[in-house]
Amino acid sequence: MAGTRCRVAIVGGGFGGLYTAKRLRRAPVDVTLVDRRNFHVFQPLLYQVATGGLSPADITSALRWTLRRLRNTRVWLGEAVDFDLAGQRVRLADGELEYDVLVVATGARHHYFSHDEWEQDAPGLKTIEDATEIRSRVLRAFEMAERRPASAKRDGWLTFAVVGGGPTGVELAGAIAELARYSMAKDFRAIDTRGARVLLVEGADRVLPSYPRSLSHRAQRSLERLGVTVSTSTLVTDITGDAITVQRGEESERIPARTVLWAAGIHASPLGRRLADASGAESDRTGRVIVEPDLTVPGHPEVFVIGDLAHFPHQTGEPLPGIAPVAMQQGRYVADTILRRLGGRPVRPFRYFNKGELATIGRAAAVANFGRLRFSGYPAWLLWLFVHLMYLVEFENRILVFFQWAWNYLTWNRGARLIAHGTAADHDGT
Amino acid sequence: MAGTRCRVAIVGGGFGGLYTAKRLRRAPVDVTLVDRRNFHVFQPLLYQVATGGLSPADITSALRWTLRRLRNTRVWLGEAVDFDLAGQRVRLADGELEYDVLVVATGARHHYFSHDEWEQDAPGLKTIEDATEIRSRVLRAFEMAERRPASAKRDGWLTFAVVGGGPTGVELAGAIAELARYSMAKDFRAIDTRGARVLLVEGADRVLPSYPRSLSHRAQRSLERLGVTVSTSTLVTDITGDAITVQRGEESERIPARTVLWAAGIHASPLGRRLADASGAESDRTGRVIVEPDLTVPGHPEVFVIGDLAHFPHQTGEPLPGIAPVAMQQGRYVADTILRRLGGRPVRPFRYFNKGELATIGRAAAVANFGRLRFSGYPAWLLWLFVHLMYLVEFENRILVFFQWAWNYLTWNRGARLIAHGTAADHDGT
Repeated sequence: MAGTRCRVAIVGGGFGGLYTAKRLRRAPVDVTLVDRRNFHVFQPLLYQVATGGLSPADITSALRWTLRRLRNTRVWLGEAVDFDLAGQRVRLADGELEYDVLVVATGARHHYFSHDEWEQDAPGLKTIEDATEIRSRVLRAFEMAERRPASAKRDGWLTFAVVGGGPTGVELAGAIAELARYSMAKDFRAIDTRGARVLLVEGADRVLPSYPRSLSHRAQRSLERLGVTVSTSTLVTDITGDAITVQRGEESERIPARTVLWAAGIHASPLGRRLADASGAESDRTGRVIVEPDLTVPGHPEVFVIGDLAHFPHQTGEPLPGIAPVAMQQGRYVADTILRRLGGRPVRPFRYFNKGELATIGRAAAVANFGRLRFSGYPAWLLWLFVHLMYLVEFENRILVFFQWAWNYLTWNRGARLIAHGTAADHDGT
Repeated sequence: MAGTRCRVAIVGGGFGGLYTAKRLRRAPVDVTLVDRRNFHVFQPLLYQVATGGLSPADITSALRWTLRRLRNTRVWLGEAVDFDLAGQRVRLADGELEYDVLVVATGARHHYFSHDEWEQDAPGLKTIEDATEIRSRVLRAFEMAERRPASAKRDGWLTFAVVGGGPTGVELAGAIAELARYSMAKDFRAIDTRGARVLLVEGADRVLPSYPRSLSHRAQRSLERLGVTVSTSTLVTDITGDAITVQRGEESERIPARTVLWAAGIHASPLGRRLADASGAESDRTGRVIVEPDLTVPGHPEVFVIGDLAHFPHQTGEPLPGIAPVAMQQGRYVADTILRRLGGRPVRPFRYFNKGELATIGRAAAVANFGRLRFSGYPAWLLWLFVHLMYLVEFENRILVFFQWAWNYLTWNRGARLIAHGTAADHDGT
């Protein structure tokens, strides 16, 4: 019996892959979800791990635990490296996986365009390891400053530059400013952490360029109240281990800064390229696969691409943004489409239902964009908190973690302040 | 004013160093605590991190945050590498630290005696990175088994050997058995995790050799009820990547096991050797510095050695055990001794007040040894829980973490199941 059922292979355990599997829960199909990590990451709270507010375990869940009740689903730890579309096989680093239907949802990584050499000095924030690396760098910078006499060199350790004013950059800059101005204010003897400089550099003429102009301005004011220096219409022209060079109009400035964080660009997972090569599909300049209205690859109705890896232009002319709600809705759509096909029912094209966007700026401030309804400040922050609470409760029963976090918020404490591997500068994910 | 005060340098932020600093809180001295990590580890719960029950952040606290209210204390992130006793300076990897009084409390690491080559295949459990490495290996073993057909090879992935039947080995073996038999029982499809073999190998004729015989037997029965195979009077003669060879009397057996954990021996931190060389003090065969009745180094009344690094034989003829209560009491004693000397009062030799020992064996079982009062099972486990709860509350206000953990215990969930770096076998501390 099981051998004759439709075999669905899902590559990637992010929001897209997880929601596909969950929606197929009662379907007469055999699902294999393969991921090179054994856990799902709740990416919207990654910046909290990067700034010591939450632990990696607080925002991750073991895929196999999350999916344990789905009796038609198995989870494989393995790394997909290529696709054999003719043979209907996913090639893994150590094996292969046959499918009747393939769902590729391997997401995106941060990207430095033509400046790969910046990666070492300006880490991005896409994985748990990225987050703990950033946490280590930020915390270590304060430690280095504490042991040095007042000097321009010390000021460099106390300067933090965040490149990119989208939601991730805004959230990171706000959280670092809070860390310096409040959470750690009493912990040092030689330095005053409240004097740390946090710079946010954005190439467009405002932060949160995808939001309405009024919310961008409110977000900038909230950041400035936290002590963040916001530079818009400003380009980064160089990043070295101890400084960042920015250009605004004709003016160029080199700012000593030992800690530079990258939130300025992403590129689709390399599997997007593999899939495009194998199928002849087109991909856009950030490596996303351009999909059909039903999220399949042209000429391969059995291959779906969803989430940050997919370029879906059919609704508004613009590709949909790389955010969790898009991936979740696409995951559910793919599951429904598989069921419709199995039942011989007609398939409708994918439609994204925009429930709105939220970005948070430090404690008790946020901006919310729900089309005509736009608000900011404390109400937006409460909504942000509520949405994330609901998710954590639904998903993981992590309600006590959430209260612990709320308690830390009230007491300005950040409990997860581990520097990986102490004084050495090596990468590690503690 | 500050420049003329007695400068106390404390090397190491474990229980010994931390309790010294805390006790000196109101003393007219300037304290510098230097550690190569920025956090303190609550070692008694390290095995919980190694088995996915707790996160690194749950059992660590930033030293600087913990000591933030001690206005006479500063914390330095730095690595001590040697001592200049004549010049009264601690040599750091990147600087130096002058002192009038020195307290060395850098603890111990696990040790393989004449088999250093076993370290790679049998990690020990002393640091946060050790714990996350063990967690990754244990979890990955189940993942590897899930993707393999039933075979002797797969059985090797489902066999876990713990070498050493002291408290750490007993706690690890019990927790792994629980993980396999309860926490993960429903999470896999191809394997039955309840069939996993957990071996505990001990050279002495019973587990917990430092405990009374009756408690050793109760501990063994508790382990066996959890499904652990206990082999006493058994020596390990070889460890390779895929098997462990044990010898009992004349009989030798090679047991396929992909996961071997080392809880069989420790050796003092290399700084013990440095200090002995610099001072002419003697050290024992595990590298501990043999101290005077007042915990100082012979000929150097200004240099104290405490905790796992110290060999203190003056009370019972035997050195005191390397456990947290000894380090805590020694830390307080050193602080009091510094104060007595500053006040010109006589100094009494150190006396350890034995409050008893506790070891836990999985859920709701433990053994407690309070001299004439000995008990085991659920009452001992409740006591164990209470003692650790009190510590966490006193130290870190981590009461909600504790409740989260209790909740996971009741629901058999282990929330912190992250495999570092996925399919690759490299070391990482997520």
